[in-house]
Amino acid sequence: MEFQYYLPVNLVFGRGKSEIIGEKAKELGKHALIVTGGKSTKSSGLLEKTEELLKNNGLSVTIFDKVTPNPLTTTVYEGAELAVANGCDMVIALGGGSSIDAGKGIAFQAVNGGDINEYIYGRKSSNKALPILAIPTTCGTGSEGNGFAVMTNPETSDKKSLRCSAIVPACSIIDPLLMMTMPKEVLASVGFDALCHNMDAYISSIAQPLTDMMALEGVRLAASSLPILYEDCENFDSWDSLCLASTLGGMVINTAGVTALHGMEHPVSGLKDVVHGKGLAALAPHLYEASIRGRTDKFAKLSVLLGGQNERDFTDRIRLLLKKLNLAVTLGEMGVEEKDVDWLAENCLKVSAPSMANHPVVFSLEEIKNIYRKSI
Amino acid sequence: MEFQYYLPVNLVFGRGKSEIIGEKAKELGKHALIVTGGKSTKSSGLLEKTEELLKNNGLSVTIFDKVTPNPLTTTVYEGAELAVANGCDMVIALGGGSSIDAGKGIAFQAVNGGDINEYIYGRKSSNKALPILAIPTTCGTGSEGNGFAVMTNPETSDKKSLRCSAIVPACSIIDPLLMMTMPKEVLASVGFDALCHNMDAYISSIAQPLTDMMALEGVRLAASSLPILYEDCENFDSWDSLCLASTLGGMVINTAGVTALHGMEHPVSGLKDVVHGKGLAALAPHLYEASIRGRTDKFAKLSVLLGGQNERDFTDRIRLLLKKLNLAVTLGEMGVEEKDVDWLAENCLKVSAPSMANHPVVFSLEEIKNIYRKSI
Repeated sequence: MEFQYYLPVNLVFGRGKSEIIGEKAKELGKHALIVTGGKSTKSSGLLEKTEELLKNNGLSVTIFDKVTPNPLTTTVYEGAELAVANGCDMVIALGGGSSIDAGKGIAFQAVNGGDINEYIYGRKSSNKALPILAIPTTCGTGSEGNGFAVMTNPETSDKKSLRCSAIVPACSIIDPLLMMTMPKEVLASVGFDALCHNMDAYISSIAQPLTDMMALEGVRLAASSLPILYEDCENFDSWDSLCLASTLGGMVINTAGVTALHGMEHPVSGLKDVVHGKGLAALAPHLYEASIRGRTDKFAKLSVLLGGQNERDFTDRIRLLLKKLNLAVTLGEMGVEEKDVDWLAENCLKVSAPSMANHPVVFSLEEIKNIYRKSI
Repeated sequence: MEFQYYLPVNLVFGRGKSEIIGEKAKELGKHALIVTGGKSTKSSGLLEKTEELLKNNGLSVTIFDKVTPNPLTTTVYEGAELAVANGCDMVIALGGGSSIDAGKGIAFQAVNGGDINEYIYGRKSSNKALPILAIPTTCGTGSEGNGFAVMTNPETSDKKSLRCSAIVPACSIIDPLLMMTMPKEVLASVGFDALCHNMDAYISSIAQPLTDMMALEGVRLAASSLPILYEDCENFDSWDSLCLASTLGGMVINTAGVTALHGMEHPVSGLKDVVHGKGLAALAPHLYEASIRGRTDKFAKLSVLLGGQNERDFTDRIRLLLKKLNLAVTLGEMGVEEKDVDWLAENCLKVSAPSMANHPVVFSLEEIKNIYRKSI
């Protein structure tokens, strides 16, 4: 047994906890840049309320509301410029995974400047960023629980994450009540993403005792709560469970990494701008079928948590879950064509090399192409 | 579900990892105060080797080797004076739980000065301390995994912990090979302490999902490895398990606290200077008998992990384990007499009030006295 573990998360979890955004923010800075998307935090009233809570606690506020799904490095530059121009000394990342990731990227870029791709590709490193207060409104990426920020470079379509301890949020407020405005379709795809983070980290070749323990609990919580919530979105206990599963998923991938499922999905949503959770759903059955032989023991445990018997019925349980969530989709439905397969497979080996290396079966280029083809 | 979780541990775990003490130390400072006891780290050669590894990495070294079991606040003052006088900018805590706790106290005192009891009793607070590198040589207190430092005030015999995030070690190197020099008797008592930390935190009324998960894993690891090691101290995998259980125990009590078992033992070892693990062993069967009604569900789970069926055979399993470890002892054998009971019970309610409040059954003064009496 040999491992290193460092993840200084600071979690405040519970229904209604977003009421203390102001108190938590004033421990971190005086002038907050709120990073959010253009729509849902406005229509729900959360953005306005957050602004009020911050002002009541004596903070100045600047708003950057230009985050889009699959956030772009160029958006991060724009947000960072605004933060610097206004003298912001902290970032409040408010919204779904895209807003949290963009907020983390902006907090990093505002301090470090230059070409962020240098840091994403590990040619440069820094342990500095503005302090981040993360308030997720979806429960999928788990970005509130780690030091990753996934961005897409619009020039190359490369979707890849910046990874460093400096962008682990100084505080994350996880308020299940904020998630309840998610449309059912969004819930299904983000919830499946949360489940997959925990499964990816559990089967990873760099998994370790602490991540295994948390990942199994994350799988148990997500698998038990997600189908219930899809049918009954007023089930508060299930919201608690899914939100915790999501945060655990974010935490475990920080240390154990993701594996081929996320590694192969990133090129898809980098190229076609599809919803990440749907991309995962299309790839999962075919990818897992080709992976079980690599860690039959671990797939057996996962299968049991999904209601199955052993590793042999694991993909059946995944297909059943996807059917229940109305997520039995194909990459073809999302616009991926046979002619995209070569680019996808090559991009996967370029941008997702570490994730592919963590997978229990290390696939050849040809095997990767086959999985993409089957998923179309 | 509602919780807060913040514990910025930085763990380096594995056989032989103490070889990188120098590399890790130089990330934290330039002049290290090594805090250790007078004997075991000298006879094992670890102190000399650590000094060499530090010097090879360019650090200056001052040694403070006056730590005794159940370390005193006065010893902490002496160590802190030495650190300040020599311009030390970091502390290396090397040895058993007493050395780690004393090292943490010294790192705190060197920066904050004044009467440390003010901080222990919460009348003052500070979030500053010298950075600490902890290298445990016993696997019991789990002090390498938390922000607690237990000390005894020789004027009052009060044994109580300083608690703050600043004394969470900046890095802890947990090298199971360092534990293998422990005599069998020490192994039994520190190993039982590790088990009890996990059980205490699990049954605590302020337990939460993250601590429950880790505590159950800690109980599983400790209960399965401890009797094996007591018979065969060359079983490396069991050393790994027990060391991880110990660190997990330290981590979970940081957040979920300890309960009445630790709360009632502290007055005993404060008054009589007995070995902490033996004090726990003497109290455990009688205390648990009076506690099970408070959380039958949780005691049932603990019993299963100890090889039992349900909550009804939990204390039988504890007695059996103590017998296997040659730890079926009484407080009477340690010099505690009937005439001490009043002081012990009153001191318990004074110094251990929070731990007693966390217990699943909140005992009256009379009930506490009865448990002490039965344990004599």
